[in-house]
Amino acid sequence: MIIVLKPRSDTRVIKHVLERIEALGLKPHLSEGVARTIIGVIGDESKLSALPFQAIEGVEQVVPILKPFKLASREFHPEGSAFDIKGVRIGGGGLAVIAGPCAIESEELLFEIAARVRAAGANILRGGAFKPRTSPYSFQGLGRDGLKMLQAAGERFAMPVVTEVMDPRQIEMVVEYADILQIGARNMQNFDLLKECGRTRKPVLLKRGMSASVKDLLMSAEYVLSEGNRQVILCERGIRTFEDSTRNTLDLSIVPNLQGQSHLPIIVDPSHGTGRPDLIPAMARAAVAAGADGIHIEVHSCPERALSDGPQALVPDQFDRLMREIQALADLFGKTITSRTGEAVACARS
Amino acid sequence: MIIVLKPRSDTRVIKHVLERIEALGLKPHLSEGVARTIIGVIGDESKLSALPFQAIEGVEQVVPILKPFKLASREFHPEGSAFDIKGVRIGGGGLAVIAGPCAIESEELLFEIAARVRAAGANILRGGAFKPRTSPYSFQGLGRDGLKMLQAAGERFAMPVVTEVMDPRQIEMVVEYADILQIGARNMQNFDLLKECGRTRKPVLLKRGMSASVKDLLMSAEYVLSEGNRQVILCERGIRTFEDSTRNTLDLSIVPNLQGQSHLPIIVDPSHGTGRPDLIPAMARAAVAAGADGIHIEVHSCPERALSDGPQALVPDQFDRLMREIQALADLFGKTITSRTGEAVACARS
Amino acid sequence: MIIVLKPRSDTRVIKHVLERIEALGLKPHLSEGVARTIIGVIGDESKLSALPFQAIEGVEQVVPILKPFKLASREFHPEGSAFDIKGVRIGGGGLAVIAGPCAIESEELLFEIAARVRAAGANILRGGAFKPRTSPYSFQGLGRDGLKMLQAAGERFAMPVVTEVMDPRQIEMVVEYADILQIGARNMQNFDLLKECGRTRKPVLLKRGMSASVKDLLMSAEYVLSEGNRQVILCERGIRTFEDSTRNTLDLSIVPNLQGQSHLPIIVDPSHGTGRPDLIPAMARAAVAAGADGIHIEVHSCPERALSDGPQALVPDQFDRLMREIQALADLFGKTITSRTGEAVACARS
Amino acid sequence: MIIVLKPRSDTRVIKHVLERIEALGLKPHLSEGVARTIIGVIGDESKLSALPFQAIEGVEQVVPILKPFKLASREFHPEGSAFDIKGVRIGGGGLAVIAGPCAIESEELLFEIAARVRAAGANILRGGAFKPRTSPYSFQGLGRDGLKMLQAAGERFAMPVVTEVMDPRQIEMVVEYADILQIGARNMQNFDLLKECGRTRKPVLLKRGMSASVKDLLMSAEYVLSEGNRQVILCERGIRTFEDSTRNTLDLSIVPNLQGQSHLPIIVDPSHGTGRPDLIPAMARAAVAAGADGIHIEVHSCPERALSDGPQALVPDQFDRLMREIQALADLFGKTITSRTGEAVACARS
Repeated sequence: MIIVLKPRSDTRVIKHVLERIEALGLKPHLSEGVARTIIGVIGDESKLSALPFQAIEGVEQVVPILKPFKLASREFHPEGSAFDIKGVRIGGGGLAVIAGPCAIESEELLFEIAARVRAAGANILRGGAFKPRTSPYSFQGLGRDGLKMLQAAGERFAMPVVTEVMDPRQIEMVVEYADILQIGARNMQNFDLLKECGRTRKPVLLKRGMSASVKDLLMSAEYVLSEGNRQVILCERGIRTFEDSTRNTLDLSIVPNLQGQSHLPIIVDPSHGTGRPDLIPAMARAAVAAGADGIHIEVHSCPERALSDGPQALVPDQFDRLMREIQALADLFGKTITSRTGEAVACARS
Repeated sequence: MIIVLKPRSDTRVIKHVLERIEALGLKPHLSEGVARTIIGVIGDESKLSALPFQAIEGVEQVVPILKPFKLASREFHPEGSAFDIKGVRIGGGGLAVIAGPCAIESEELLFEIAARVRAAGANILRGGAFKPRTSPYSFQGLGRDGLKMLQAAGERFAMPVVTEVMDPRQIEMVVEYADILQIGARNMQNFDLLKECGRTRKPVLLKRGMSASVKDLLMSAEYVLSEGNRQVILCERGIRTFEDSTRNTLDLSIVPNLQGQSHLPIIVDPSHGTGRPDLIPAMARAAVAAGADGIHIEVHSCPERALSDGPQALVPDQFDRLMREIQALADLFGKTITSRTGEAVACARS
Repeated sequence: MIIVLKPRSDTRVIKHVLERIEALGLKPHLSEGVARTIIGVIGDESKLSALPFQAIEGVEQVVPILKPFKLASREFHPEGSAFDIKGVRIGGGGLAVIAGPCAIESEELLFEIAARVRAAGANILRGGAFKPRTSPYSFQGLGRDGLKMLQAAGERFAMPVVTEVMDPRQIEMVVEYADILQIGARNMQNFDLLKECGRTRKPVLLKRGMSASVKDLLMSAEYVLSEGNRQVILCERGIRTFEDSTRNTLDLSIVPNLQGQSHLPIIVDPSHGTGRPDLIPAMARAAVAAGADGIHIEVHSCPERALSDGPQALVPDQFDRLMREIQALADLFGKTITSRTGEAVACARS
Repeated sequence: MIIVLKPRSDTRVIKHVLERIEALGLKPHLSEGVARTIIGVIGDESKLSALPFQAIEGVEQVVPILKPFKLASREFHPEGSAFDIKGVRIGGGGLAVIAGPCAIESEELLFEIAARVRAAGANILRGGAFKPRTSPYSFQGLGRDGLKMLQAAGERFAMPVVTEVMDPRQIEMVVEYADILQIGARNMQNFDLLKECGRTRKPVLLKRGMSASVKDLLMSAEYVLSEGNRQVILCERGIRTFEDSTRNTLDLSIVPNLQGQSHLPIIVDPSHGTGRPDLIPAMARAAVAAGADGIHIEVHSCPERALSDGPQALVPDQFDRLMREIQALADLFGKTITSRTGEAVACARS
């Protein structure tokens, strides 16, 4: 941590800051210059962050040097993490292709969509039973009935399943049916939810909040990790910007950015990231070319009848075409889309 | 709702859209032009929003006309709402001055701060017992012990108290001690939490999310209102922008913007909105001049020893000076800062 | 400047960085810790910024300490600057009230509006002769004819006049007619234009770019100042954010933020800052309460017939009402709205 | 255009709006509903946009239907545009690889870099002679001397050259030496500069402004096109968001977004878009996978000695490796990197 003092700080201020640092058992380094005096402290920043140096009169600026996350950092775990979820590998060369409807609406529809995405090459099935809707008057999901349908579809088509959990009180139920717990963008800083998910032993798919910085995302991952759950998969799904022709702005640079500082796998959701089916295939290809460990795509047999987010879903035929491109890119970059049985999915290759 | 078709749409598409509208029992108005065909539907937009017209092939754009919130709208409730909370009036000419420490750290400190802010003219006491901290390694609050201290301080200094609730499982406990439930920015779209707060009969202070639009904020208020709780107080606390010299960008235009379309009171929090004590007084004055129904200020006797957000707190002397300016502005604009006994607070007048 | 090295940097890297610093005639301070090595350099940062230390292999982060602007800084000029423009004082307790139509459309209309705003208490007249329009098919301004009308109206109603200059080739002409040169938001980083305005001796009204940070704005002011023109007036006019119910988000915290680090006067334009007449009065009041040195308001007798930005103009009656509030706030905060003759404008007092 | 009236509008307002529309020779369609009355006008929106309907009292909202750009639209020119610049094809399957230093610093250095990027597979050389620097104290470019060096390097290594023009007064000079005129992000709405570039017959590389929407970018292209210059190449280079770990946020979704509504080629600049060499290769690959018509990369032999933007340049070895990946992606997607002689560049294939 670097503490920069205001111009013309008197010795009383300098002494006060030095004492506060030494009281923590740390050693300050003083550099006095013509324009500014700076005090460097190298050591356990967690001790330092306990003290709001910024609030000391005479302090102009405090610059943290060490990253505030630990378990999520690549320094802590230099190798990239890879998880095996019922035979599906995410990270370490394994590419996750998560597909399915936004919301689970009926067993028939879910099975129809699951059959199509599995045939096209997806290896994980998604579907929402609890839906975070902006309006209290919108469809809120089927709850436990939806979870049962999702589990059944996963069994039938040999795919692990992922579904969102919104409330700590739902976790016990969701854990019964789902293979992966999703924490949605709106709950990325719902810290009680993060902690409770951290106490399960299910992999957690943690979506980036709409205005979360890369550091914020890693701090939220740290909440899960610090409870003992090491299986966190990060997910970029677009951030809020001034651009209004897309639902969000998909920030693909987060892929190499995260890979440089964290060992956790990172997947990309171009469905929420753009909100426009005409842009999803290009962004899915771009995500894989950027090095993502997976993609997350909403697919619906009849988007115009979907009860949630229909306008941003691909139809199965579009998903088929996309998967042929994704498979070609996976081949080019040496990635494998493994199925639940641990073998490469064959059907997407045309 | 206006549905704009793509250029050169054939009659099959037009017929399909018209049929979907009529199937909902609504009447479409067709306007065919050279460049575009548009279909207007005036009626119950809640029926319309159930159908994702955007997903119909041939549809270029869907423009909603009616606002998606109802109970929060000024059309529903043309008079501005005003709440009386233990004698303190918010809205309808009553100015709330909410002050106190970020986190409750000890009874002694809380009482010391409460005494000072009450003497300066604050009429509501704040303090956090459950703290949403970015880092799992930061101080997380004293929980029930903190709530007890807060209640005691409120009794001692005759101020209703407000505190944050982060998890639906905490509500039962918090309701025992607090007069107002605060929903923090990070939980503005924690819909289960909103619903549970809506089921209590305590006033709810709903803070705007860091990237929430004005409409999003009102939709979240709608979640609380639609559960039967009519006492929602909105709070601007800054949004995330590219500007990095302040913690957030305080969007004061939300004050008249909300007042034009909603009847709910709106208060402003310049402490989180700027994150800088040197900017708080100017922004508090601006908020009152803009017509806000209250301000929310963090005050700490010794910011450099605070366990949470110390750098953004005013010290009591600064708060004293600010309150003299706030009182003068309240007088100018005909607003009253009422105390718990229903009388105007006198002490802030210099 | 602080240079933070990557973890486990070897001595070769450290030596290389130290040598580069010493080659500039500066003295580095080395602090080696367990987690990181940091090198502080205190001295002439302009020398340092010539070298891209960030590009040196082994360097993790470079943290500048000194501000990159000089002539605009309060350290350079501790007293706030105040300018006297034909008797109108801006800064130092003088409040500028700049009003007039967006574009100069005809002499008759301009005189009509000028008479009304002068009577209401404005002390500077604005009007555009060269209009930066998003579309090449929109009205682009009357050019020299418009400038002549503006000068005549200024003479007739005893107000100095301000108008925008968009192209270095226009400056010679505009200087003939205008008392203040305005640089619009879209040209805030048109550096050749800044330099040319800096070579005139006319005051410059520099508007903040739509995505300019506070630092960027001051760096643009520095371009004008470094050419020898000391009369720069800064202007906040809203920034681009995700919020789409207003044209821009007016960032009022820039007022105290700038006042803390710069001596230049700062005025606020709520017309462009909100784009909505229903929000302008509240934001104008808030600007004055925040401590601004002036406001900038578009007024049009018949907004629905305006050739540019009609929807965001106040009508004269609205401006009259606003000015009564502004005058009351000026009185409260000890500010004076001086007219061209150096006396306080009387007519706005009701 | 759709005009939505406020609730409970009386017939006088409706009549007034209808008359204004009919006065323009257009035919309004009136739809009266319970909650709102809406008036649709289909026809020449350029006529309509002349009238600020928003400013009419009683009007709640005005919704444009047609896009405000024409010559840039795909409706105007359904085939994608492709340009041949001295044998280098951009668009229509031709992939531009623009590389070179940020600023031209010396002939020796420029030739060294040009040789390396040409050998690696670049087909267009870039280099700045006029530099838009945030600080007036930074290196501002070599001017005409730099242009001469750039032209010579282009000749020597058989690459067309592109360089930025910042001021209308420079255009005559720059046209003598450059094959493509670049308009930088800071000047994207410098409308006089756009018009002057539109009057030349040189291709224009138009960079997106830091806070320009997709529509704003196309409107700026329209300025160039409307002067008769049909060769406009768009360039995404990152936008400003709250994320502060990258210099900008690269918005790759603009690639398919633009391709859907415009015929103009679109290239991507990950150097400015990220500001971090560790992220550039991933983003360049992603751009090509997203369907971009080219990439724009800064390369410097010794970034730590560069006079401008060194920290974001790749070194030649990194560029070599990147080009092998870009070539593989071009092959996969059927794109060709043509050299000045019209033949495919061979050297990048490993």
